[in-house]
Amino acid sequence: MSTRLTTLFLRTLRETPADAEVASHQLLVRAGYVRRAAPGIYTWLPLGLKVLRKVEAIVREEMDAIGGQEVHFPALLPAEPYQATNRWVEYGPNLFRLRDRRDNDYLLAPTHEEMFTLAVKDLYSSYKDLPAIIYQIQTKYRDEARPRAGLIRAREFIMKDSYSFDVEDSGLDESYAKHREAYEKIFQRLGLDYVICAAMSGAMGGSKSEEFLFPTAIGEDTFVRSPGGYTANAEAVETPAPADVDFSSVPEPSQIHTPGAKTIATLVSGLETEAPREQGWSAADTLKHVVLKVSHPTDGDSLLVIGLPGDRDVDLKRVEAALSPAEVEPASEDDFKAYPELVPGFIGTRHIGPQGRKDADGNSLITYLMDARVPYGSAWATGGDEDGYHTINNVFGREFEVDGRIEAAEIRAGDPAPDGSGELELARGIEIGHIFQLGRKYAEALGLSVLDENGKSRIVTMGSYGIGVSRILAALAEEYHDEHGLTWPIQVAPAHVHIVATGKDPAIFEAAAQLAEDLDDAEFDVIYDDRLKVSAGVKFADAELLGVPNILVVGRGLADGVVELRNRATGESREIEIDGASQAIADELTAQLLDAGA
Amino acid sequence: MSTRLTTLFLRTLRETPADAEVASHQLLVRAGYVRRAAPGIYTWLPLGLKVLRKVEAIVREEMDAIGGQEVHFPALLPAEPYQATNRWVEYGPNLFRLRDRRDNDYLLAPTHEEMFTLAVKDLYSSYKDLPAIIYQIQTKYRDEARPRAGLIRAREFIMKDSYSFDVEDSGLDESYAKHREAYEKIFQRLGLDYVICAAMSGAMGGSKSEEFLFPTAIGEDTFVRSPGGYTANAEAVETPAPADVDFSSVPEPSQIHTPGAKTIATLVSGLETEAPREQGWSAADTLKHVVLKVSHPTDGDSLLVIGLPGDRDVDLKRVEAALSPAEVEPASEDDFKAYPELVPGFIGTRHIGPQGRKDADGNSLITYLMDARVPYGSAWATGGDEDGYHTINNVFGREFEVDGRIEAAEIRAGDPAPDGSGELELARGIEIGHIFQLGRKYAEALGLSVLDENGKSRIVTMGSYGIGVSRILAALAEEYHDEHGLTWPIQVAPAHVHIVATGKDPAIFEAAAQLAEDLDDAEFDVIYDDRLKVSAGVKFADAELLGVPNILVVGRGLADGVVELRNRATGESREIEIDGASQAIADELTAQLLDAGA
Repeated sequence: MSTRLTTLFLRTLRETPADAEVASHQLLVRAGYVRRAAPGIYTWLPLGLKVLRKVEAIVREEMDAIGGQEVHFPALLPAEPYQATNRWVEYGPNLFRLRDRRDNDYLLAPTHEEMFTLAVKDLYSSYKDLPAIIYQIQTKYRDEARPRAGLIRAREFIMKDSYSFDVEDSGLDESYAKHREAYEKIFQRLGLDYVICAAMSGAMGGSKSEEFLFPTAIGEDTFVRSPGGYTANAEAVETPAPADVDFSSVPEPSQIHTPGAKTIATLVSGLETEAPREQGWSAADTLKHVVLKVSHPTDGDSLLVIGLPGDRDVDLKRVEAALSPAEVEPASEDDFKAYPELVPGFIGTRHIGPQGRKDADGNSLITYLMDARVPYGSAWATGGDEDGYHTINNVFGREFEVDGRIEAAEIRAGDPAPDGSGELELARGIEIGHIFQLGRKYAEALGLSVLDENGKSRIVTMGSYGIGVSRILAALAEEYHDEHGLTWPIQVAPAHVHIVATGKDPAIFEAAAQLAEDLDDAEFDVIYDDRLKVSAGVKFADAELLGVPNILVVGRGLADGVVELRNRATGESREIEIDGASQAIADELTAQLLDAGA
Repeated sequence: MSTRLTTLFLRTLRETPADAEVASHQLLVRAGYVRRAAPGIYTWLPLGLKVLRKVEAIVREEMDAIGGQEVHFPALLPAEPYQATNRWVEYGPNLFRLRDRRDNDYLLAPTHEEMFTLAVKDLYSSYKDLPAIIYQIQTKYRDEARPRAGLIRAREFIMKDSYSFDVEDSGLDESYAKHREAYEKIFQRLGLDYVICAAMSGAMGGSKSEEFLFPTAIGEDTFVRSPGGYTANAEAVETPAPADVDFSSVPEPSQIHTPGAKTIATLVSGLETEAPREQGWSAADTLKHVVLKVSHPTDGDSLLVIGLPGDRDVDLKRVEAALSPAEVEPASEDDFKAYPELVPGFIGTRHIGPQGRKDADGNSLITYLMDARVPYGSAWATGGDEDGYHTINNVFGREFEVDGRIEAAEIRAGDPAPDGSGELELARGIEIGHIFQLGRKYAEALGLSVLDENGKSRIVTMGSYGIGVSRILAALAEEYHDEHGLTWPIQVAPAHVHIVATGKDPAIFEAAAQLAEDLDDAEFDVIYDDRLKVSAGVKFADAELLGVPNILVVGRGLADGVVELRNRATGESREIEIDGASQAIADELTAQLLDAGA
C-alpha cells in the first residue's frame, strides 16, 4: 500500500504536547499516530492504525497457532453475569456503569471472564468438547483513577483476551503452558523485550499467575530478579519465612519516656539518651505501626494496623495486592476518632489485634497484621500506648500476638531472594501480558459444567490470558526511538520504506513516484513524501520522526544514476543504482522481513 | 484456513430460537454465527466473525479505492462536542449516556460527525489539505426503543462511517458522487440487492441525502418506485402540490346533527341520512383531524392537529421525519385535558391553528398542519366542534386557515408519482447505507474552517456516509437462504468449501483430511466435518444449515475413485476423480471467486 504525504491525514508536531510526560506518548502524538479525545481515551490516526493492525495480526497468528478460536463479544454488557461473580461490586469505581432507557444496569466490560464462561456453557456440554481456547481482540474499558502516559494506562484500550476451558487440572496446566509459549513468541516476533514475573492474581481470583513485563524506567510496576533467575512482580515477592527467635534472655518490657519522638529518627535518638545500651539503637530495632483504612467493596471500611521494622516503609501496592479486592489508604484523623485507645505517634501493641477490642463476632476491631519478615520471638522498641512513651523489650509472641501476617514492607535491592540464590535486584516495567490459572471460580459462580466419560457432571477449570494490544504500541515506541523520533522494527512499522524526494527537479519526483509504484506493486507498504514546496530538511525531520525503518532518498544523486537507502535506526546508508533499484530494494526489504521472522 | 468441526466453537440448533422472528436472525443463531448477549446486543461466534471480516474487507477496499483514509475513533466520548452541536439533547433517549468517576458526562457514540470534524480542525488548516475522505469501521451504540430482528436493529452494531471535507459545494458534490459509486460497487461485490432512494436527512441536518435499501418484505422502511424510475423512502416522498380549488359555488357551511358519529364510517352514513346529496358521501369527502403529542428535545411538548382526508391514515414515521428531531405519538386523554375546546370525535376547525388560542409569542397554542395533498379552496365535512355535530361545506381558505403544510398521510400504491410518470408502487426494505450532504452545519458548530488561496477563512462543507456493516450480514442472510439453511455467496462465506466425510472407513477420513490440507495449503478457507460418530444425515443437515457454497462429499464413491462436489444453493452436484481432485476443486473455487469479483 502506497501512501503519499500530500494527502495522508497527518500533521507532525515540532513541539512536545504539554500533557505528554513519557517519550512514547510524546512521539506517538508528535508523529501523528494517535490523538487524545479525552483523558485516557485516544483516536487512532492512519499511521497508528496501521501499526495497531500489524501488532494485532502477529497476536492473532500465534493465538491461532495454539488452537485459539477467535470470537467477538460486546463491550456493552448487562450487569447480571458480573453480579453473579460479584465483580459488579468488586471492581468499584474502575467500572464504567450505565443504565439503558428501561433503567436496566449495564457496564462497559473491563474483561470478559463471565461472558466466555456463559458462552461455553451455552454451546458445550461434554468433556469431548474440551479442551477449548477461545479469544478475542476487542475494546475494553476501565475508569482509571489516574489515566497516564498515553496508551500505557488508558480508559478505553484494546486487549487480546483469551480463555481456556479444561476438565482436569492437568489440562489447565497445558493450556497455561501453551499460552506462556505463545506469548513468548508474540513478544519475540514484535521485537519487544520482556521479563516473565511471578504475579498476584488480584481481583481475578485463581491460583497461579505470571506477568509479562516490558522493562523500562517509566514502568508502573516494580519487579525483582535474583541471581538464580527468580523474577517476580514486587507485589508478588514472598519473603522467606524468618526463623523464630529465642527470647528467653530478653528482659521484661519497660516504658521509656520519649517526649515528642513521633518519628523513627527522633525515637532512635531518644532511646540512645533514655535507654542507652552497648550495641546502640537503630531504626531496625524499632517496630513501627502504620495505620491504614481498608475499603472493601462488600465488607465495608475497617482499620488495619501493620507492624514492620522502623527502617522499612509500607508498600501500599503490595498491601493492596494482598488484600484485593479491597482498596487501602493511610488512615486520616477522622478515621482515628472512633479509636481513642490509639495514641497517634505512640501506638503500641496493647490495644490492637488480639490485645484490643473485639467486634460482635469476636474478631479484632482493629486488625493487626505483622510484616512477613518480622520473626516470631523478636524483641522491639514500639510505641508505648501513652503520649510521650515507648516500650522496649516488647516481644512478639510474649507480650503480644497478631491477627496474621502480610507482605507489607517495600522490597529493596539487596533483600535476600526467595530462591536463596543471593540478593534481589530491582527494576521497573510495564505489564504487557498476564496469564492466570483461574481454576473453577467463574465456572462455579456461573454453573459451567460438562459430563465426563462416566456421565458425571464436572465443573470446568479455566484460565484467563491477556495481552495489552494498544499498550504494546507504547512499549514498542519506548523501546524503539531516539532523539529524532521513532525507529520501528520493520514487522510493525506503518510502512516498510519511506521515500523522500528532494529538490525541485521533476525527474526526481518521477523517479521517486515510479519507485513507490513498483514497491507498492510488489506488495510493500510505502510512504512517499511527494511534497513539492517542503524543504529537504523538513522532509528528513519528518521521516525520522515517523520512524519507518528504511528511508529511500531520491535526490541529487539521481543525476549520477544512484539513490540512497538509509537505515533509520543505525543511520547507515548505501547507494543503489537506479537501474534495477526497485528489485534491489525489494530484495533488501524481503531480507529484513525474513530476518524479523515476519 | 482449515477448521475442523470436532474442535470448532459451534453448536447448531435444530429448533428455532423463541425470540427470533425473521429468517436471518433464526438462521444466524441456529447455524451458530451469533448469540444474543442482551436485547439488541450480540456476540460474534467464529463463523459469524469470519463473514463479518470478509464484508469489512470489501467495504475497506472500496473506501480505499476512492481515497478514503482509515482511522479509528473511540466509542466512549466526552459530551462536550455533542453538546456543541446540540445532538447530546436531540438524540433523546436513543443515546447511551454515562458518567465517569469524576462525574463528567460521556456518551457511547451513535455516529461520529463531531469527532471527525474536530480531528480535521486539529490537523488541517489550508484549502490545500482538502478534499479529504476519512473513514472508520467501528462499533456504534443506539439505545433503540425496540431492538428487533437480530442484527437488523441492534443496540451495539458495527458501521463503516466516512466523512468528506471540501471547501466548495462542487467538491462536496464530487465526494458525494464518489461515495455513491463506491457504495454501488460494495453492494454489487457483496451480491446484495439494493435500491437507491431519496431520503430525509432527519436528525443529521443537511440538504441532499439518499438511502441504499435492501428490498425485503421484513424491512422496516417503506419505499416507492415510479414507472419513470423515481425511488424514495416513503418518508421522503414529496406529494405533488395540488392546484387550488375554486370554492365560489360552495354553499355556506352548516352544522349537521351526527350523534355518535365518532368514526369516519359512521360519519359518512350519518351524512347520507342527515344531509343527502346527489353525488352521495364518501370518506374522501371528510377531513379528519388527528391529534398528536409532539415531544421536542429542546422545545418541550406541544399539541399538534393534522388535517387529512378521511380515507387516509397518518403515517407517524413520515410525520416524525418531517418534525425531526421531535418524537411524535398519538395524544392521550391526559394530553387533551388542557384543551377543553377540543371535543373528542368532533374536532373541527374553529379552535385550532390560527383560529384557536395563542401563546405569549402570538403563535398557535394548538398547531394545525394540513396534509400536503389537500388543495387550498377545497370543501370538507369536518368535526362540528360540539358533541354530536359535524360541519359541511367547511372550506379550507374561506372558513379556516392552517399554520402550515406537512407530509403526513401514508403513501399508497397507486398514488401519483412526484415525477409525473404514473402511479407509485410500494415496497419494503432495510436501510444498508445512507449518504448525506451535511453541508456546513457541523463545521460551523465546531469552528472548522481553512484558509483559501487568498488567505480568506472558509467554513468547510462536509458529507457523512454510513454503511451498516453488521446489518449487512442479516441482509445477506435474508437474501441468501432456503428452507434448509443459509446459502452464502462465496465472497463472504465463512469458508469456500465444506468437506463432509461420511461412513466409518478410515480411508475416507484420510482422503478427506488430505483434501482439507491441500486446499488449506492453496489458501482456501475450508471447513472439514471430521466427526466420527455423527450420521451422514446430521452432517448434511449441518452443512446445509451453515451454508458454505460448496459441499465436498467424501464417501462411498471413494471406493470407485470419486468424490462429489455439490453446489449448496442450486443442489447441483458432479463427481470428481480423486486423482487430482485437490487441483480440480481449487480451479473450481478460483473460478467461482473470480466470477464473484472477489
